[in-house]
Amino acid sequence: MSPVRLLERKRDGHRLEPSDLQRFFTGYLSGDVEDYQMSAFLMAVVLQGLSAEETDVLVDVMVASGATLDLSDIAGAKVDKHSTGGVGDKVSLVLAPLAAELGVVVPMMSGRGLGHTTGTLDKLEAIPGFRVDLDLERFRRVLGEVGCAMTGQTREIAPLDRRLYALRDVTGTVASIPLIAASIMSKKLAEGLDALVLDVKMGAGAFLPDAEQARTLAETMVRIGEARGLPTVAVLTAMDRPLGRAVGNGLETAEAIRCLRGDGPDDLEALVVELAAEMAVAPGSGVVDEQERTRARGALHSGGALERFRRMVEAQGGDPRVLDEPNLLHTAVRSGEVLSPRSGTVHGVGPRVLGEAVVSLGGGRARVEDAIDPGVGFEVIVEPGQRVEEGELLGIVHAQDEAAVEVGRRALLTSVLIGDGDPPEALPLIVDRIAAL
Amino acid sequence: MSPVRLLERKRDGHRLEPSDLQRFFTGYLSGDVEDYQMSAFLMAVVLQGLSAEETDVLVDVMVASGATLDLSDIAGAKVDKHSTGGVGDKVSLVLAPLAAELGVVVPMMSGRGLGHTTGTLDKLEAIPGFRVDLDLERFRRVLGEVGCAMTGQTREIAPLDRRLYALRDVTGTVASIPLIAASIMSKKLAEGLDALVLDVKMGAGAFLPDAEQARTLAETMVRIGEARGLPTVAVLTAMDRPLGRAVGNGLETAEAIRCLRGDGPDDLEALVVELAAEMAVAPGSGVVDEQERTRARGALHSGGALERFRRMVEAQGGDPRVLDEPNLLHTAVRSGEVLSPRSGTVHGVGPRVLGEAVVSLGGGRARVEDAIDPGVGFEVIVEPGQRVEEGELLGIVHAQDEAAVEVGRRALLTSVLIGDGDPPEALPLIVDRIAAL
Repeated sequence: MSPVRLLERKRDGHRLEPSDLQRFFTGYLSGDVEDYQMSAFLMAVVLQGLSAEETDVLVDVMVASGATLDLSDIAGAKVDKHSTGGVGDKVSLVLAPLAAELGVVVPMMSGRGLGHTTGTLDKLEAIPGFRVDLDLERFRRVLGEVGCAMTGQTREIAPLDRRLYALRDVTGTVASIPLIAASIMSKKLAEGLDALVLDVKMGAGAFLPDAEQARTLAETMVRIGEARGLPTVAVLTAMDRPLGRAVGNGLETAEAIRCLRGDGPDDLEALVVELAAEMAVAPGSGVVDEQERTRARGALHSGGALERFRRMVEAQGGDPRVLDEPNLLHTAVRSGEVLSPRSGTVHGVGPRVLGEAVVSLGGGRARVEDAIDPGVGFEVIVEPGQRVEEGELLGIVHAQDEAAVEVGRRALLTSVLIGDGDPPEALPLIVDRIAAL
Repeated sequence: MSPVRLLERKRDGHRLEPSDLQRFFTGYLSGDVEDYQMSAFLMAVVLQGLSAEETDVLVDVMVASGATLDLSDIAGAKVDKHSTGGVGDKVSLVLAPLAAELGVVVPMMSGRGLGHTTGTLDKLEAIPGFRVDLDLERFRRVLGEVGCAMTGQTREIAPLDRRLYALRDVTGTVASIPLIAASIMSKKLAEGLDALVLDVKMGAGAFLPDAEQARTLAETMVRIGEARGLPTVAVLTAMDRPLGRAVGNGLETAEAIRCLRGDGPDDLEALVVELAAEMAVAPGSGVVDEQERTRARGALHSGGALERFRRMVEAQGGDPRVLDEPNLLHTAVRSGEVLSPRSGTVHGVGPRVLGEAVVSLGGGRARVEDAIDPGVGFEVIVEPGQRVEEGELLGIVHAQDEAAVEVGRRALLTSVLIGDGDPPEALPLIVDRIAAL
């Protein structure tokens, strides 16, 4: 079938034969299908959908377009976690060493922040010297020695995904659940994992704020993983408020280190414990019980996870003194307190306005190639449901100058909603868990 | 607004600001908007539509992207006709000299056949020596001397339309009524006309077989023309069977010449008379009355239109002897009679199968750059509603060898439906007329 005929069939909502679709994607890799044909296809997919069968073809061609890691020479079950991203989401920094402490091998490949969410690589780079561009040899070595390693996606993995993502980014075709699911899962399927845990955010600060869309994305990814022999569990979690109190790369790194000391905010610790327990049982597709959570909590409070993190920081060239002296992290020049303009109850802390403010303060990026300032951001002191008095401290802004502090102050005052009466109901931290039937 | 944001808004079905859309199209002309962004836009337009306001922006940028003819130094009202194309549609060859004979100046710019429909330029080239690539100077001269001239679209006119059409052709985005309407009207608006008559076909052999879609296309084009000060009338005409009896370029040219002698098939003469009468009254947006039709019929039967055609053929380098000796037209090597396999009533003559057979016999083109054989095609002897006996002549196939004659015979037997009882109702030749309110 010609590319044009295939485009017409997708445009008209007809089913595509897997063999035809496969030829279309491989034709794109070989140059027989042009960018302008692929972008028309992607727009048709956004508007007409992609069936499970068609999504599987895309995933398979994406995986086959690049290298697949073979980590079988490293003993133990290899399990990674992927988050769809949220404001204040510093989970990975705590989770990788924690899961390793529970006996899981964690080959974590992460991304940069984009739009209103920060990224794991940016947070790690707030640690002076920390290298996030390990070649595969060094990645394997750190993984074997420490039990966890954190690096950026290597260019060898799923190059078709990289090309398609770049095209989607400039053609208004990012917003498609099957395309998002295929992009995430193709990279994870190439990592040589024994199991995968997905943290799918829902609520205003999530990439897909709509609860039903978030759930569909989770179900789609679990189905893709399981159909390809990768045990996959998705946890749906709250992103109707920031996770933890720190928002901004360096501030989030500092909070992650506090959490590794057993001194993190409750919601962050609870989520990290839940995901670590999932990772520990995931290869057997077991169900998490209280005993797993207790083990995970113990590894945080014993200092075991912190020491594991220290070894990883050292193995990846970072300055381990930041674990004891957080002021060695990259920080901003100015800070300013934000006081409550009135008395009342905190009805909500809007995450997206804070995430977007971090970008405008220079701590995030609108485009992948932008440089960022890791020191800027927010410490949010209050949380939804809490009673505050006029003049009470709501939070602290970190920025590069007084004018920027003022920009951040306005953002925080917009984010923190103070009202009278009972606050609206917030999402439970763990909304749901989706696993294979 | 960035191209990506504009794509997202069109994708989501939101209204686009005219100024934003104009920048998007002019950005495409200047290279700031890429082919892959435009193709994603076109796919979104096919699936989400283009409002009247947005279509007008596209038409205006298309017209402004190239030259606009100024024919004001030629006396008389300049009126062109455009047909959406059908099987056996040789109207233009008769209509241009006929309308000129009625006192209208006819600067006709036509296209090539594509897909299952033949094109006016291909039919004209069946006349030895006839030039369809006149430069603007010669086009003006013929027009001034003869009152009509027929040529291909010059490259100076609406280059944005040409680029968009080429992109639509390879991205499955041809099938959009506003895009089709904008493409047709932008070229006609650039021709310096005083009025325009549109022949919009409906029925199985039409580009848009669906009656409602054909009507919408007609209404869209009339609206565009009128809004830009060009009096425009659309006539909806039958294409549920071939027009006339000849299908195939050279055979159609011969039939057009017979019609100019007053000896054409009834349906062809009736349609040409109707369209000529429309062209004669169009600049004043009058309504055609029987007197206009009588004038037109007279110009055919007096030989006046034929002499006008002869002068145009001579002025454009063609051999005028073909008017008296039709065997000087390019012809095929073989012909074969097709006899009825049974007795019964002709329930229909399917136009599309004949049009597609002409392509497979070498007389049409799948791509614009293909060369064609003008001699091949069909003479269909029977018409819907007619009684036939087994063994009676249904039609004649013209092809390059015996095997091809056999291919054509099978196509004709597929096209001509012979049944028992009354035939289904056919469309009236003139279905409707759409003019400004």
